[in-house]
Amino acid sequence: MSKYVYAFEEGSKEQKPLLGGKGANLAEMSKIGLPVPEGFTVTTEACNKYYEDGKKIDEAIKAEIFENLKALEEKTGKGFGEIDNPLLVSVRSGAVISMPGMMDTVLNLGLNDETVEGLAKLTENPRFAYDAFRRFIQMFGDVVLDIPKYEFDSILERVKEKNKCENDTDLTVDHLKEIIADYKNVVRMKKRMEFPVDPKEQLMMAIDAVFGSWDNPRAIIYRKINEIPGNLGTAVNVQSMVFGNMGETSGTGVAFTRNPSTGENKLFGEFLMNAQGEDVVAGIRTPKTIDQLKEVMEPVYNEFVAIADKLENHYRDMQDIEFTIEKEKLYLLQTRTGKRTAKAAVEIAVEMVDEGHISKEEALLRIEPNQIDQLLHPTFEEASLNEAVQITKGLPASPGAAAGKIYFTSEEIVERAEKGEKVILIRTETSPEDIEGMVNAEGILTARGGMTSHAAVVARGMGKCCVAGCGEIRVDEVRGYFKIGDKVYNRGDYVSLDGNTGMVYEGLIKTQDVELSGTFGKIMEWSDEIRTLGVRTNADNPRDSRAAVKFGAEGIGLCRTEHMFFDEERINVVREMILAENVEDRKSALDRLLPFQKEDFVGIFREMGERPVTVRLLDPPLHEFLPHTDDDIKALAEEIKVDYDKLRDKVSQLKEFNPMLGHRGVRLGVTYPEIYEMQSNAIFEAVVQVVKEGINVKPEVMIPLVGFQKELEMMKEVVIASAERILKENDVEVEYLVGTMIEVPRAALTADEIAKHAQFFSFGTNDLTQMTLGFSRDDAGKFIEIYKDKEIFERDPFQSVDQTGVGKLMEIACKDGRKERSDIKLGICGEHGGDPKSIEFCHKLGLNYVSCSPYRVPIARLAAAQAKIRNK
Amino acid sequence: MSKYVYAFEEGSKEQKPLLGGKGANLAEMSKIGLPVPEGFTVTTEACNKYYEDGKKIDEAIKAEIFENLKALEEKTGKGFGEIDNPLLVSVRSGAVISMPGMMDTVLNLGLNDETVEGLAKLTENPRFAYDAFRRFIQMFGDVVLDIPKYEFDSILERVKEKNKCENDTDLTVDHLKEIIADYKNVVRMKKRMEFPVDPKEQLMMAIDAVFGSWDNPRAIIYRKINEIPGNLGTAVNVQSMVFGNMGETSGTGVAFTRNPSTGENKLFGEFLMNAQGEDVVAGIRTPKTIDQLKEVMEPVYNEFVAIADKLENHYRDMQDIEFTIEKEKLYLLQTRTGKRTAKAAVEIAVEMVDEGHISKEEALLRIEPNQIDQLLHPTFEEASLNEAVQITKGLPASPGAAAGKIYFTSEEIVERAEKGEKVILIRTETSPEDIEGMVNAEGILTARGGMTSHAAVVARGMGKCCVAGCGEIRVDEVRGYFKIGDKVYNRGDYVSLDGNTGMVYEGLIKTQDVELSGTFGKIMEWSDEIRTLGVRTNADNPRDSRAAVKFGAEGIGLCRTEHMFFDEERINVVREMILAENVEDRKSALDRLLPFQKEDFVGIFREMGERPVTVRLLDPPLHEFLPHTDDDIKALAEEIKVDYDKLRDKVSQLKEFNPMLGHRGVRLGVTYPEIYEMQSNAIFEAVVQVVKEGINVKPEVMIPLVGFQKELEMMKEVVIASAERILKENDVEVEYLVGTMIEVPRAALTADEIAKHAQFFSFGTNDLTQMTLGFSRDDAGKFIEIYKDKEIFERDPFQSVDQTGVGKLMEIACKDGRKERSDIKLGICGEHGGDPKSIEFCHKLGLNYVSCSPYRVPIARLAAAQAKIRNK
Repeated sequence: MSKYVYAFEEGSKEQKPLLGGKGANLAEMSKIGLPVPEGFTVTTEACNKYYEDGKKIDEAIKAEIFENLKALEEKTGKGFGEIDNPLLVSVRSGAVISMPGMMDTVLNLGLNDETVEGLAKLTENPRFAYDAFRRFIQMFGDVVLDIPKYEFDSILERVKEKNKCENDTDLTVDHLKEIIADYKNVVRMKKRMEFPVDPKEQLMMAIDAVFGSWDNPRAIIYRKINEIPGNLGTAVNVQSMVFGNMGETSGTGVAFTRNPSTGENKLFGEFLMNAQGEDVVAGIRTPKTIDQLKEVMEPVYNEFVAIADKLENHYRDMQDIEFTIEKEKLYLLQTRTGKRTAKAAVEIAVEMVDEGHISKEEALLRIEPNQIDQLLHPTFEEASLNEAVQITKGLPASPGAAAGKIYFTSEEIVERAEKGEKVILIRTETSPEDIEGMVNAEGILTARGGMTSHAAVVARGMGKCCVAGCGEIRVDEVRGYFKIGDKVYNRGDYVSLDGNTGMVYEGLIKTQDVELSGTFGKIMEWSDEIRTLGVRTNADNPRDSRAAVKFGAEGIGLCRTEHMFFDEERINVVREMILAENVEDRKSALDRLLPFQKEDFVGIFREMGERPVTVRLLDPPLHEFLPHTDDDIKALAEEIKVDYDKLRDKVSQLKEFNPMLGHRGVRLGVTYPEIYEMQSNAIFEAVVQVVKEGINVKPEVMIPLVGFQKELEMMKEVVIASAERILKENDVEVEYLVGTMIEVPRAALTADEIAKHAQFFSFGTNDLTQMTLGFSRDDAGKFIEIYKDKEIFERDPFQSVDQTGVGKLMEIACKDGRKERSDIKLGICGEHGGDPKSIEFCHKLGLNYVSCSPYRVPIARLAAAQAKIRNK
Repeated sequence: MSKYVYAFEEGSKEQKPLLGGKGANLAEMSKIGLPVPEGFTVTTEACNKYYEDGKKIDEAIKAEIFENLKALEEKTGKGFGEIDNPLLVSVRSGAVISMPGMMDTVLNLGLNDETVEGLAKLTENPRFAYDAFRRFIQMFGDVVLDIPKYEFDSILERVKEKNKCENDTDLTVDHLKEIIADYKNVVRMKKRMEFPVDPKEQLMMAIDAVFGSWDNPRAIIYRKINEIPGNLGTAVNVQSMVFGNMGETSGTGVAFTRNPSTGENKLFGEFLMNAQGEDVVAGIRTPKTIDQLKEVMEPVYNEFVAIADKLENHYRDMQDIEFTIEKEKLYLLQTRTGKRTAKAAVEIAVEMVDEGHISKEEALLRIEPNQIDQLLHPTFEEASLNEAVQITKGLPASPGAAAGKIYFTSEEIVERAEKGEKVILIRTETSPEDIEGMVNAEGILTARGGMTSHAAVVARGMGKCCVAGCGEIRVDEVRGYFKIGDKVYNRGDYVSLDGNTGMVYEGLIKTQDVELSGTFGKIMEWSDEIRTLGVRTNADNPRDSRAAVKFGAEGIGLCRTEHMFFDEERINVVREMILAENVEDRKSALDRLLPFQKEDFVGIFREMGERPVTVRLLDPPLHEFLPHTDDDIKALAEEIKVDYDKLRDKVSQLKEFNPMLGHRGVRLGVTYPEIYEMQSNAIFEAVVQVVKEGINVKPEVMIPLVGFQKELEMMKEVVIASAERILKENDVEVEYLVGTMIEVPRAALTADEIAKHAQFFSFGTNDLTQMTLGFSRDDAGKFIEIYKDKEIFERDPFQSVDQTGVGKLMEIACKDGRKERSDIKLGICGEHGGDPKSIEFCHKLGLNYVSCSPYRVPIARLAAAQAKIRNK
């Protein structure tokens, strides 16, 4: 027969799945001899059986509960329902993973009209006893009987008012008796039942309520948000009561063994004398800091300090402890691993290694990679932020803090930035033409677009603060202002953006910069020691390259060449190239683009030094470089002196139904080899120049969107012909690679054929996900939230690699690619390259590197180390 | 040491890869004792060696040639270059697969100034001899020396004119000598060489030229078009000359053992007396029919009839025979399997089985499935066609012949068709709103759009004649006319379209209908006996269903429900449904659509009887049902009395960047379950009605675009709830299946998970190809031709399944799907289901059925039988 109930002394911290977090830790504390009030835990298995049995508590389990209750009576010397010496208990839920939204706590269970009298006599404190009874009925009514809280509150308020009591503590025993009578009446009216007088009935009802609350809507939503499985169940802890409100020698408090905000190794917490836990939360009285306990009750303080120390050493992590003092005696009610900020997590982990408590590996596993994002972007200075006026809120599209003067066009942003102004770009939505403005702005604010809008994606790539989809603002780009309601903000006004929260503030808030050395540096150093997966960055320009190297990037995994085409000086040459009617005209335009591209590469190669740089040849469809509205076409026609009709025809001819699946990537190279030839020439002329400066660059040329081996074969020939010619002409020797993106499902499926011509594969998981799932990222916004709600997928497949589907293709590609070419270099350059779960998957696949945006490089370094540790 | 040269008597018909088609058959005829002029074959291996050696004929091979030449001299008793009794030979190329574009024939090789004299004396016919020499120089000059033909022609013409000769035969020996001298001069001027006098040199030059011609551009193009590998090489046949032009007891001719046009079992051919082969082709004299040979030279006729019979029996197929009569002696110069029309292919195959020559399996393999398409569509009566005036030409987008009055709007087409008029729909291009017009028209003509345009795809699906992309015509739909140049064709004028050729004719040409019984019926019967792969049809309405059943469809593999939504009566209700702001309004519009959908299904179920019918729930994105231009939106807003701005907002809100990968298929079902619920209700209410009429229908409900098992699980619940309720309420029992399309790569990759909820898979290879290759079908037109030219893929992946890529996904899906559910039903419903190569692939995968458009059902039946035979 299964065992469904464990006395605290029977369990241990390893039994979390069975006893829940709270129960396992109470058991552990009992085991190591700490002063924990006696009690027992009804297991999560009992909860699961409760649901299997159609929400009924099994008779055998009930019997086990009563046996443990009897043992508890013996241990405490008190009796459940015994008038002279009543046993009172608390009933608390305790899931494996702590979960707000479930029924939490009922205190003082076991009281009724008779035992309350006994308690009054025993404690010689009738006021305390009746107040405890009053609290019990209220909690029980609220959480077990599901009677709205305000029903009780209004009675309390009425009696207080009637008797001119300002605080609860002013209530007399008679007042409390009146309240209790009224409370019982509420139960009678609302639930058509008498408030249960039998303590055992009270107990079983409370346990039933805890089990039932596992499946209440709030709990279900919480589990969904936090990806907690629904079949874990909750345990119930029944514990004999101790009272922090038995006068001035009693109290209650909460403390962290270290500072959860800064990580400082110093007790951090607060307490209240003559109070129960709920009073601390209620905030009517101001608690004292834990240090002050020394002044109030030094022996208890010393005992607590010793226990806190013991607990931290025992658990080998910072603890969050609840305690109660009953008549100068200290009791521990809970301990758990304390939540902490990223900064504290880093500090504590490093310090605990230094103190010899934990290994480097353990330290690394304790830091949530996504959390350290907070440390990598500028933040607002707290003092300055406290005075700020929030004016609206959008989506926190890209983290960081930015403050500056607002402007509404890319041109003006560039102009002002060049004069040294700090500027914020505001647009209804951004498009590729805004790139230069985005580069030069401190931050970006858009009125439309979601977390995957152009502004959001590009800003994240740049590590630039962005608040997107700020629905309340109306932007007038032409006149240069935005409005919120009737309030107008004009060009040149100051605005501040918080990309972590989506908040938008008036005026200029001071920002503070990132600190990458010290303990954070140590975490990175350890990560690098341990991980075997390389970490590169996606960077398209020298500025991003520099930032990425600072963040520890070991190379560039994706350098997109098309962003370079949008530069003001070049875009019209690009357009001439597109409008060319024959190869000669196209080549002549390309000849004029070559110096620009070369210059770009020289800058990037210089920044990256001897680190490998993967350059992707042109990828987007050509129509992305042309205007689309009639007005824009007209303007361009005039500007570049082309016939309007001809230009419009070309635009309409290039228009595509599904540009994502259209004439782009290697398909451009196959149809216009001269474009890829020019780009190869630019790359290798830049290589020659930088090598002659003494830097042994490592270029890797990447062909995008390959689906057929022949495409790659043809383009590889173009690249190699260009490389060999230029290197030979300049008498320069350089090792270079030619490879391909794996982003078309067919490429993954025929990886053996593709690998014949590819020295490396780089998984372009953005497009690979779009095609494998048949989800256009630009359009999926319309249903993806519904898909998450309905749990059709666990995680957004654009944020974390869909391991079952896309992952299977990646496995096939790795296996077949290696079969054909055993030393093939494998990497990933989709946005997933910065996602810790995806990084672990890449580690398991045995990729050589992940590549992500500069600001995610440290996250990836940590995640790669964790993946290595977890998969030893 | 390899043997590179074979005397005819050394070879046999099985040695085609080595001796080429012509050589192997000459050898075979020699072997079975037929009168073939002596000769030998230089093998294809010699050709390949020629290329390996950098276009040089190996000395050893040369020696082998001369040995065989010597043997030939002995056999014929003539000498090469021997003045008194010169051996003359023909040199002919002979590839494994006959291939125009290669060097073909040089006759009379061996002549020079001396041997021509000898020939003159020997034949006592100087005119014949000098004419032979003249012809030789001209042919040699043209095909070996690559001198343009007109250079020789102009000399011949000049001499004829100067001497007032009307025909070549009027030329005297002196004239011919003058011509010969001038011809030699041409060679001297053009090639800076003397015309070679040494017969051995002539021979080696000719062999070299044949080998060289294997790689000329025309040959390369021909091989590409016909998918002939480039490494087969060609053989060269050297054969002693016989002369059909040695006076009135000589002659030459060509005959088929059966009629290649009708298949009739009767010699069919023609001959000319006193002529060489080229004279028959030149068409200056009118040849006589082969029957007439009996009158001219009965013994030879009888011998020829006997030989033709023997050859057909020997080769067990209809033969195409070339012969020459030299002074009453019959020689055979070639036999090969005769090309034939679809009609003849069918007739001959069936008759040869009846005659006991071949087995049913052999008969089936002899019919090219794609060719029988000709037999399945109406054609023009030949007499009527001969008088017709062609006015323009477009793309042959969908086969068949159609004639009728022209109209320019769907509405008018419907109106006129209802009055019984035969009508042709003419549009600049068609869109989904034209469906009803297309259904009611005899044929469709569009000015724009390619072979995969809307008009083309839909028309092929309907088996309706369509000429698309007819660039010369300018259509004015509003005023109701089209123009070609200045010529105007008004509404109501007659026009005829040939969908097989793309020709457009003025006036009404009589058409003739399809004959499915008789020998064609026999082929189908045998196919059905043999094949194991089922053949279903894609049909969306009772009319197509009826046609498909007539063609032998065993069920419907794809019934699209969205085409039904475009009907005039319904489209605005559909739009109301789309514009609904809440579930109630949407449901109310859906309630009004239900009777229409039910009625559709009732009609289809009645036609299909007890055959399974797979109904696909709504697939296209909702914006397809809304207008897109401002004007159309305005018009609709007025029509359905909706606020213009609201409508425009909705249109713009539904707009997608990549609709192919957008909010469609099961994603609609997940977000608006009420749509799928209505469709399920309509299906099962129709089922109930038709079952009560006594037909045991077999519905199969198919969920499109599934990528995640949960999507299918949820929608399956909706369908089953609807089915169970309706069947129970009506006390009807019916077996039904619920399954899914496999068209998203992820579905194929996770087929085991999907199969948990799917009773059948149907491969939607159109979308599966688009997503696996990352090719938008609507956009790929811009580069797909270039891809074919550059041989990036062998076949258009939208016409024939890309077996390496898409096929691999299909294999994975079949394997994993069966692993999870061993009795899962597997089918294909993409357009590939009608492509013979893809059908063979499906057979090998072990699919249960293919589904294709009604008019391709017979093709699929034959192809399925062939697949079975080939893969025994």
